[in-house]
Amino acid sequence: MRDHGGDLDRARAAYGGAAGAWIDLSTGINRVPYPMPALAPADLCALPQRDARDDLIAAARKAYATRAAILPLAGAQAAIQLVPALVRERVAGPGAIDARVVAPTYNEHAGALTGAGIAVRAVAAPCDLAGADVAVAVNPNNPDGREYPPAELIALAKNVGLLVIDESFADAMPELSLAPHLGEGAPDNILVLRSFGKFYGLAGLRLGFVLGAAPLIARLESMAGPWAVSGPAIAAGRIALRDAPWRARSIARLAEDCARLDALAIASGWDLVGGTALFRTYTIPGGAASAQDALAGHHIWSRVFPYADDWLRLGLPGDEAEWRRLGEALR
Amino acid sequence: MRDHGGDLDRARAAYGGAAGAWIDLSTGINRVPYPMPALAPADLCALPQRDARDDLIAAARKAYATRAAILPLAGAQAAIQLVPALVRERVAGPGAIDARVVAPTYNEHAGALTGAGIAVRAVAAPCDLAGADVAVAVNPNNPDGREYPPAELIALAKNVGLLVIDESFADAMPELSLAPHLGEGAPDNILVLRSFGKFYGLAGLRLGFVLGAAPLIARLESMAGPWAVSGPAIAAGRIALRDAPWRARSIARLAEDCARLDALAIASGWDLVGGTALFRTYTIPGGAASAQDALAGHHIWSRVFPYADDWLRLGLPGDEAEWRRLGEALR
Repeated sequence: MRDHGGDLDRARAAYGGAAGAWIDLSTGINRVPYPMPALAPADLCALPQRDARDDLIAAARKAYATRAAILPLAGAQAAIQLVPALVRERVAGPGAIDARVVAPTYNEHAGALTGAGIAVRAVAAPCDLAGADVAVAVNPNNPDGREYPPAELIALAKNVGLLVIDESFADAMPELSLAPHLGEGAPDNILVLRSFGKFYGLAGLRLGFVLGAAPLIARLESMAGPWAVSGPAIAAGRIALRDAPWRARSIARLAEDCARLDALAIASGWDLVGGTALFRTYTIPGGAASAQDALAGHHIWSRVFPYADDWLRLGLPGDEAEWRRLGEALR
Repeated sequence: MRDHGGDLDRARAAYGGAAGAWIDLSTGINRVPYPMPALAPADLCALPQRDARDDLIAAARKAYATRAAILPLAGAQAAIQLVPALVRERVAGPGAIDARVVAPTYNEHAGALTGAGIAVRAVAAPCDLAGADVAVAVNPNNPDGREYPPAELIALAKNVGLLVIDESFADAMPELSLAPHLGEGAPDNILVLRSFGKFYGLAGLRLGFVLGAAPLIARLESMAGPWAVSGPAIAAGRIALRDAPWRARSIARLAEDCARLDALAIASGWDLVGGTALFRTYTIPGGAASAQDALAGHHIWSRVFPYADDWLRLGLPGDEAEWRRLGEALR
């Protein structure tokens, strides 16, 4: 497996401690999760029903303010896994496929493409994507928080074969999303990926969505097959995505928490690289490895990156006890 | 979506009634499910951990009595979806791929292949698979219960490119499984698919496995990507697959229930086509459509097949109240 946040078992192997003793800040998963609704026996026992899935899609359509076709999948990751085969179908002919990803970013996009035998070129900015058969950008970007204006991406769609925009961290920035711009009259070669588990803090459920023009989504649905999303994920998504007050409260709380974390970090002599509402990336003057090691000594897990020795990414602590422990660890 | 059992929402649209008012016998899902274990918050909130997944694999290895490499997926269906891309990688060259499926059977095997542009030939028996690039058989078969001896299938593997054996209904017939025959010295071109949700009655969780030689399984793991199975599915599978007494009791109970259902059906003038421990398929002298309609009038849903007007498939009722209602409906 490629290196990822959320690998608490590796932290435990290196530093010890029961899973419950750790604060895992190595991901961008909200540590104040949406309260998991009670499950009906049918959610566990029966095959997921078409009407429940349709209702989940309706909830997602409203939450993401879109008229696009929507396919629920087992996480945004599951959509990433389908992209290479879709690209191979769309790019006929014997020549090599021109695949580009705005980097650095979440490594599974390039990983899935190269795993399928498609060479990937890392580029520095969305403007460098023009001319590609498949072009990928994460907006806002992970881990540096770069933001790309929707108008720029929509204009770019005219000049690429397939444009994949991963909005896994866009829940708190609806103005940045392409979702409201999809639908009739919009380019029909854009896929927007959304994550449920990160913002709603329920990553174990495996739920995400891919949005786009109806023919593209129908093809992806066929590739994913029936019952691609579990009953518990459908049950939780139907309720959580309709809870606009929880979403608004969480966005407000996360904004406060980001300012609080930035203040702690700056007081420690770190500089902010950038971030989203769910994580912050800092440059560490003494290097990220020693900072990660020091935090791990307090059973706080963080994320470092193979391509930037001095970058360290932190998710946001949940309750006050977690903030207190982080404050002590950074002192 | 292709026609399937478990489509209770279609039954309700046609015949009315709340979901809870129906007995869904249109699937082969055990209606006496394994008791869902309590979930820890981490099962829902955190990304599934590597060590938990490794432990699930260990539980599956023991339950299926195999030394093969194992990949957990979101249902046997998820493995079916990966087969076409795997076949395309293995069969180089410009010629058409020779894909064959022993029919009639579960329609998603041919569906996934044809959906990926691979024409499929339906054949009558495993011996007709020899020479194929990809050969698929379901053992025991759905819906007619045909059984293929493991030795015959292992011998067949020498004469096909990739042999896919779907053992979704083999839990109660371990002697029929290829799983114990996989591993060192066995053919390295066999994939065995196992379902968790059917026998354990937890189909909504989406859990299944694909077993085979390590290089094949590693390739499938790369295609499936990280976190392909949810936290709740991992948690349930780790416990349920280790519960040998529950498995033995369920096999015994299902055998009794099959005899009981066959007796009811024969008393109604139906003939047994065949079946497995989890479903029975009958020929209905007056045609299956009218029998399905009559049962639906009692809010009991059954499965009919587009290719056999007089075949009707029934899963096994769960508690005594369900048996009583079925008995009354068949009177």
